[in-house]
Amino acid sequence: MWGGRFAEGPSAIMREINASIPFDKALWRQDIAASKAHVAMLGSQGIVSAEDAQAIADGLDQVAAEYEANGVPENWDLEDIHMVTESRLAELIGAPAGRLHTGRSRNDQVATDFRLWVRDAIDQVDAGLADLQRALVGRAGEHAASIMPGFTHLQTAQPVTLGHHLMAYYEMIRRDRSRFADARTRMNESPLGSAALAGTGFPLDRDATAAALGFDRPTANSLDAVSDRDFALDYLQAAAQCALHLSRLAEELILWASQPFGFVRLPDALSTGSSIMPQKKNPDAAELVRGHAGRIVGCLTALMVTMKGLPLAYSKDMQDDKPPVFEAHGLLALSIAAMTGMVSGSDFRTDRMRQAAELGYATATDLADWLVREADVPFREAHHITGAAVKLAEARGVALDALTLAELQAIDQRIDQRVFAALSVDASVAARASYGGTAPVRVREQIADAKIVLDMES
Amino acid sequence: MWGGRFAEGPSAIMREINASIPFDKALWRQDIAASKAHVAMLGSQGIVSAEDAQAIADGLDQVAAEYEANGVPENWDLEDIHMVTESRLAELIGAPAGRLHTGRSRNDQVATDFRLWVRDAIDQVDAGLADLQRALVGRAGEHAASIMPGFTHLQTAQPVTLGHHLMAYYEMIRRDRSRFADARTRMNESPLGSAALAGTGFPLDRDATAAALGFDRPTANSLDAVSDRDFALDYLQAAAQCALHLSRLAEELILWASQPFGFVRLPDALSTGSSIMPQKKNPDAAELVRGHAGRIVGCLTALMVTMKGLPLAYSKDMQDDKPPVFEAHGLLALSIAAMTGMVSGSDFRTDRMRQAAELGYATATDLADWLVREADVPFREAHHITGAAVKLAEARGVALDALTLAELQAIDQRIDQRVFAALSVDASVAARASYGGTAPVRVREQIADAKIVLDMES
Amino acid sequence: MWGGRFAEGPSAIMREINASIPFDKALWRQDIAASKAHVAMLGSQGIVSAEDAQAIADGLDQVAAEYEANGVPENWDLEDIHMVTESRLAELIGAPAGRLHTGRSRNDQVATDFRLWVRDAIDQVDAGLADLQRALVGRAGEHAASIMPGFTHLQTAQPVTLGHHLMAYYEMIRRDRSRFADARTRMNESPLGSAALAGTGFPLDRDATAAALGFDRPTANSLDAVSDRDFALDYLQAAAQCALHLSRLAEELILWASQPFGFVRLPDALSTGSSIMPQKKNPDAAELVRGHAGRIVGCLTALMVTMKGLPLAYSKDMQDDKPPVFEAHGLLALSIAAMTGMVSGSDFRTDRMRQAAELGYATATDLADWLVREADVPFREAHHITGAAVKLAEARGVALDALTLAELQAIDQRIDQRVFAALSVDASVAARASYGGTAPVRVREQIADAKIVLDMES
Amino acid sequence: MWGGRFAEGPSAIMREINASIPFDKALWRQDIAASKAHVAMLGSQGIVSAEDAQAIADGLDQVAAEYEANGVPENWDLEDIHMVTESRLAELIGAPAGRLHTGRSRNDQVATDFRLWVRDAIDQVDAGLADLQRALVGRAGEHAASIMPGFTHLQTAQPVTLGHHLMAYYEMIRRDRSRFADARTRMNESPLGSAALAGTGFPLDRDATAAALGFDRPTANSLDAVSDRDFALDYLQAAAQCALHLSRLAEELILWASQPFGFVRLPDALSTGSSIMPQKKNPDAAELVRGHAGRIVGCLTALMVTMKGLPLAYSKDMQDDKPPVFEAHGLLALSIAAMTGMVSGSDFRTDRMRQAAELGYATATDLADWLVREADVPFREAHHITGAAVKLAEARGVALDALTLAELQAIDQRIDQRVFAALSVDASVAARASYGGTAPVRVREQIADAKIVLDMES
Repeated sequence: MWGGRFAEGPSAIMREINASIPFDKALWRQDIAASKAHVAMLGSQGIVSAEDAQAIADGLDQVAAEYEANGVPENWDLEDIHMVTESRLAELIGAPAGRLHTGRSRNDQVATDFRLWVRDAIDQVDAGLADLQRALVGRAGEHAASIMPGFTHLQTAQPVTLGHHLMAYYEMIRRDRSRFADARTRMNESPLGSAALAGTGFPLDRDATAAALGFDRPTANSLDAVSDRDFALDYLQAAAQCALHLSRLAEELILWASQPFGFVRLPDALSTGSSIMPQKKNPDAAELVRGHAGRIVGCLTALMVTMKGLPLAYSKDMQDDKPPVFEAHGLLALSIAAMTGMVSGSDFRTDRMRQAAELGYATATDLADWLVREADVPFREAHHITGAAVKLAEARGVALDALTLAELQAIDQRIDQRVFAALSVDASVAARASYGGTAPVRVREQIADAKIVLDMES
Repeated sequence: MWGGRFAEGPSAIMREINASIPFDKALWRQDIAASKAHVAMLGSQGIVSAEDAQAIADGLDQVAAEYEANGVPENWDLEDIHMVTESRLAELIGAPAGRLHTGRSRNDQVATDFRLWVRDAIDQVDAGLADLQRALVGRAGEHAASIMPGFTHLQTAQPVTLGHHLMAYYEMIRRDRSRFADARTRMNESPLGSAALAGTGFPLDRDATAAALGFDRPTANSLDAVSDRDFALDYLQAAAQCALHLSRLAEELILWASQPFGFVRLPDALSTGSSIMPQKKNPDAAELVRGHAGRIVGCLTALMVTMKGLPLAYSKDMQDDKPPVFEAHGLLALSIAAMTGMVSGSDFRTDRMRQAAELGYATATDLADWLVREADVPFREAHHITGAAVKLAEARGVALDALTLAELQAIDQRIDQRVFAALSVDASVAARASYGGTAPVRVREQIADAKIVLDMES
Repeated sequence: MWGGRFAEGPSAIMREINASIPFDKALWRQDIAASKAHVAMLGSQGIVSAEDAQAIADGLDQVAAEYEANGVPENWDLEDIHMVTESRLAELIGAPAGRLHTGRSRNDQVATDFRLWVRDAIDQVDAGLADLQRALVGRAGEHAASIMPGFTHLQTAQPVTLGHHLMAYYEMIRRDRSRFADARTRMNESPLGSAALAGTGFPLDRDATAAALGFDRPTANSLDAVSDRDFALDYLQAAAQCALHLSRLAEELILWASQPFGFVRLPDALSTGSSIMPQKKNPDAAELVRGHAGRIVGCLTALMVTMKGLPLAYSKDMQDDKPPVFEAHGLLALSIAAMTGMVSGSDFRTDRMRQAAELGYATATDLADWLVREADVPFREAHHITGAAVKLAEARGVALDALTLAELQAIDQRIDQRVFAALSVDASVAARASYGGTAPVRVREQIADAKIVLDMES
Repeated sequence: MWGGRFAEGPSAIMREINASIPFDKALWRQDIAASKAHVAMLGSQGIVSAEDAQAIADGLDQVAAEYEANGVPENWDLEDIHMVTESRLAELIGAPAGRLHTGRSRNDQVATDFRLWVRDAIDQVDAGLADLQRALVGRAGEHAASIMPGFTHLQTAQPVTLGHHLMAYYEMIRRDRSRFADARTRMNESPLGSAALAGTGFPLDRDATAAALGFDRPTANSLDAVSDRDFALDYLQAAAQCALHLSRLAEELILWASQPFGFVRLPDALSTGSSIMPQKKNPDAAELVRGHAGRIVGCLTALMVTMKGLPLAYSKDMQDDKPPVFEAHGLLALSIAAMTGMVSGSDFRTDRMRQAAELGYATATDLADWLVREADVPFREAHHITGAAVKLAEARGVALDALTLAELQAIDQRIDQRVFAALSVDASVAARASYGGTAPVRVREQIADAKIVLDMES
């Protein structure tokens, strides 16, 4: 494969460390597509004859059909998907196969194939995330007014609605999709025709191959084109952030499914039991989604470390770009699907949620706000007064609105009967009607806006 | 500060682990700006009186003036920049200070301040990167036709021009800037008015504060707004990729400055000597840029790990968002400046570069290409023929174009006299005139395009 | 400082990127100690005169006294702690100061200083971890028989004792201490005398300086000695694992302090309140310990990335070894202290724990085990029978031991009256008396063993 | 598999995200061994009958024979290696198979299996590293006196010997082996018998199973035993440091193999060619070793992130422990083997090395040292004098020892004729005879010491 220069063949260790075919066979569709675009252009430009171009194109179709039917043969001697395919092409069509590689190199070929693969992966993730958003919006719609405790520091803070909580994840996923979209736009340039590193002397039409492969334009600098793995890092960074978001939702579902919380029953189809404890119903899917965040972050770290300090142009270290991306994508796609299933199929126990919201003095802020609003007390002072009321209620072991007016007035004279109307969880939630707030009227607005966006896409 | 509820004060350990003022004082300008926007809106909405609003605004100006003059006092008892500022405000203007915190919480306050800080950091980085691009384009213009060996696998591959090589970094920085710009756009929403987590019952005008602070719009979900640190991660991810690019250029400058390469003399002003070896001139700045890539990647890792699995809404873990961002920004800004200095001030030893390009059989591909083009040999066969020629030249210890025509024809009959014209490094470079290629005519095009882009900015 | 070779001084950027004095001044005690050991040896070996050696030693003592009193001056022109100290020495004692650097270089000097610093850091961490272990063992002793639900997948699994649970962390910390001890042993070799990279021609006695500084031996290879940062990585790796353990305990305390769990009241001294919600008592210290795990992992990542691919010997990148170690150590020391405070000062609500253990069918395994033991049912079958019993109990909304014997026998005839004795949480816990198990008798054994180990240390 | 409690089976997504059999089948030998130890103990303790114990043991042997012959069937419905094996056992021997799981759980089973696997992996790595050390020592012996330039900052610093340089890597690998050995000792405790989390009521003999499996003792706390993955992290941390060392040697081989250095010809068997550039001989194996360091660091990061903040005891996230360890081990084992091949098979071009050492003023320190030694000049002053001499030589474009005595004396009167003897690279190297230094006599000592250590092992 490397011409007549080598005295002896690669050793067994070399075969094993060097062969990328075990993983880069995943690129076969992209490799065929890019080769077809390349040879069509070679034909149009008269660099290869029309007959040869046609023979190569037909041969590539046949190779593709074989791969589709039987998979890609893992011939380690042929090292990678490019050589496996070209070698099979040569078996099928003979000498003209040797003209396919005119004006290109494996360096630009793999950069092109891998970009196409990552672009497809982004499109797949985006579709999955849209489904997850739809699931979130759907469930949020059911629960726009379902009361639950809002937590900060995992302490009961203020009542919120479950719909509001679910829509927070809608927002995170919205940013994830925007991040993937940005990555897609940035990577959508065609390296094909950059050849080994310096471009080529053949009169290629790089615009034509770029267009044929759906790229916005050819890359502007051939040295950069074969040395660049930003597109893979962009994918991994977007994947890592998305996985971190999913890990937060997973954490919450695990908490909520625990006996002390009891906020949710996860779908049987996404839970498992125990080999020893017959009563167990474990939130395995959620735990795996949370765990996968670690592996996806690990994939990102891997490629960042690998790329650090590499001189131009292509170095073989860059072959280690694909396993982390393939692994991260598999884990992310599965995590998104599993999370969509959990969001769609969970049985939210809104009675338990409301009950929890009514404990923990969640409406203390409402007392403070009431003092500011109705008695013109500066907020810092109102906060202090309310602290005293909570302390008293805690000492007496009762809720805030179970204190008597006399008790409240003993703390501060300015409190009057009207305060009690502010201290229910429903009143509290309804009151928080600032833009983006948890009041059902606001949550329904958020949902309606989201539906418009999602409907426009489909 | 926390109302009347606590029986005893924080312990010494707590003071130390909890206080963020040692680092979050860096946010003071943003904190003042956000407070001023907030209080102006509170006044407009009639939530606080016009007099109080004015008193607060004036007081904040005075606090800002004090900070500007004397720095921010590190009062650990007051824990963070928000409380330090509000406490000083109270000393200055008395009771009305207590009204500033109406309808907001530290949770939305810090989210707002930190976004503003990161947005400023992006603008600063972008300006630095533009300078670096200008330096690259300038030096590339000087060297659009200066021959150097292009490497793959750090082996001499094909001749390229130094201008082409420098423009590869222009492209990387172009993507970096686009990544920072995307991050800026995505983060440019105002959390202010999200309050603790649930929004507020006060009739805030969140559009007004958003506009006053240069945000595109208010955030749509208050739970998300106080739980979200995507903007910090977006910054760190863009910083990490940029640092990796700089680490590659740093690696090259270090290689080039080594005695065996001898391709560059780095500016004295960015080099150091040795305490023991008097002859040394060390590329310290380049090494530190390369090393800093590690620390910046570490900062990104830190925040990803910290955010993993956090339930909504705000958790105190998120206080650990700022040190990594502050550290990464300091390191990145310095790295960009140092690299700009090295690019601008380096003395490229083009004689040594050309000499190196003429060794190593860098034009072997040109022989293969010639066979394809002139003798219609399929590329794979041409590659094999050339391999044999290289083997012969190596055995004889001569350059490829020092083989005789007879010797070449003994390898393949189709070779004729014209081939020698293709085997000089100048001919090789000139030939690679495909779009994005290393031919001086193409490099000058790349430079011209870059100049148009850069000129449009300034 | 670098001799007569440089035409112009370092630029402002260079000063800033190059100066390590802002952070390496932390090494001053180690630097003075190593210099004193070095000069004493130079004197003994007759490399410098006895008078000069004495003058230098006295001068170093004076410099140390000044640093102790006034701190280390941050003179950026002098770049690092080594030059700052030597420069001050020269001011104090004149010409003989120039003899101190004989037979050494900053490369071996900083490697020595930093090892000494890390060794001290390990000793400090070890003492802190011993305190944490004592706190855990103490609280475990109080709660060797306090029942709580044991969780797997955060689902109630089997009853355990709180003492058993706390002793699990004792074990983790035991491994952490062993890891730090291993690191200490591995690093305890003296680089001093390796000079720049190649050793020196002066007749140094490296054994003497090694012994004087408490090292086990001098390093065996000078190139390695100045290129090696394994000791820093070993520290960071041990710190990262320790921080991960603390993050798990922190997570549990946060969960336990939440209203739905209600298993613990954290000490006021390690909690904070809210600026807006007067009822809040937030587990800030635990959250910060959990968050710090992220930053410590980030520090480890930073140094790994920085060291990747560096050729021998010393490269300036390695100056970036200190900030991550200093940062990680500060965070870890504080985390250990805060966690010790939380373990010592927490009020465990054992009533709530027992109550939770009695819900959730935690003794289902005991039913299965009873069937195996008393009725010789294969475990897999017993597991299936118990599953049916749990299903029935769940459907009826009662605990497992509230099913009637008739109901149980309808599921499997082999069940008899004796089974009920196995189904209480106390019986369940007492039964698990295998070595390392949760039975109070076993937990007390674990505690007794731990006390013997801890007592032997003090 | 999970008893009678579940209403519906796992969905397709669940099957895919949950099944670990695709990777944990790698544990089959360890799983069989642990099951055999467990059932032998159950028999000895009378917990199962002797006949059943024998039937189970025989059945397990048969399963093992099947796996050996045909591989492990990937039955996703059976989820993991434990269930696949137990299920096949039940097919083979019927009802008694159900007794194997008595007194254990998958939680302690997998913790046991995986520890055994990691222990084996450590033994394999250790053997590979010993081979690499032997290769290094062997080549160092050949080159104990071969002169090469020693670099700091990749600038020529002082002459060293190639043997000395290679022995630096011997030292790094020595520490790596010690780190793996420490990890092995620390992990060598048996979790078996910890059951799900709480221990068991069956009268197990955990000492017996521990001994049968080669563990030093059983783990002391059952909750910890099933929650702990320190052993996997210890492995990954040791692997990461080892990989970083290999990345440094890989970097050097890549540099040395480049045309400008030309210090080494790598073995053909570990190099590849180019698909486009016929003259290329690429150091692919070295590049892949360097690249793999990134992936191994990524594996470590992955597991650290996954373990962060997990409450006790077992969580399903921990299933994500195995892929990173399996991947890292495969990459590391291959990297070690490839590096051993490169060290053994490289053709070091000592003529080029010596030539490079003679350039670059590498003996300037020797001039300074001579001034200290022979003329009693303080080192700092000698350094300054030498700087002036280098400046002059550089200006004249000659080596240091090509300056005339008159020129040198014009710089400093104290210089006399004897100085020239100190300025050759051989003299320089011979002079650095401090312990651990580069003088051939010292390098041969290092080699002899290493051989004694290595010989004692075999």
